Amino acid sequence: MGATLHVCITCRAGLKPAEGAPCAGARVHEAINALAVPEGVTVKPVECLSACKNGPSIALTGPGRWSYIYGPVGEDDAAVILEGAAAYAGTSDGIVPWRERPALFRKNVIARLPAMEANS
Amino acid sequence: MGATLHVCITCRAGLKPAEGAPCAGARVHEAINALAVPEGVTVKPVECLSACKNGPSIALTGPGRWSYIYGPVGEDDAAVILEGAAAYAGTSDGIVPWRERPALFRKNVIARLPAMEANS
Repeated sequence: MGATLHVCITCRAGLKPAEGAPCAGARVHEAINALAVPEGVTVKPVECLSACKNGPSIALTGPGRWSYIYGPVGEDDAAVILEGAAAYAGTSDGIVPWRERPALFRKNVIARLPAMEANS
Repeated sequence: MGATLHVCITCRAGLKPAEGAPCAGARVHEAINALAVPEGVTVKPVECLSACKNGPSIALTGPGRWSYIYGPVGEDDAAVILEGAAAYAGTSDGIVPWRERPALFRKNVIARLPAMEANS
């Protein structure tokens, strides 16, 4: 089963966007959608991951896997985010070996959560 | 189905505990376990929620519900944490009305994640 890459599309990252311009989170989402999404990864927009202090933020989830939340990320990080998402999708438990994680993910982790299956 | 309250038991909150003394996260876990856990809530220790910059941290998860991560929390917050966990367990989607959330949860949210069922 695949992984889901959630992208917060409402994050303003503390800035008011120019009138009519997309906010910072929406720009990250657009940049990701402009690239080829790796097999096994589904991109889903989400309204607010409540990580506003560290936004824009993204999250990786998947059945049986630890979930990870990352931020801040920017539109220039789109390719790296998808690379990290592909590595995550390739695991069974969500735990990518440290050295194989993109530097962005190593540095900008906000939090992680145990697999839901183990919780309920 | 019930809610799970995950408590990070490895958080040092940036401090080295005295030799033989429990770390900050373990003390939060002990304080919670010393109280009556509300019906529908299961307390589970977890090793690192990767929210170290905002630790000690806790998380609330449950089938079909948004997950929430909070921090920093302290051992004096144990009763309030259980009160918030009970309110969370009483919802079907994990979203407790803003005014009914403990001030600790309103102020110290680190992030939230959509329900796993909606992801996969």
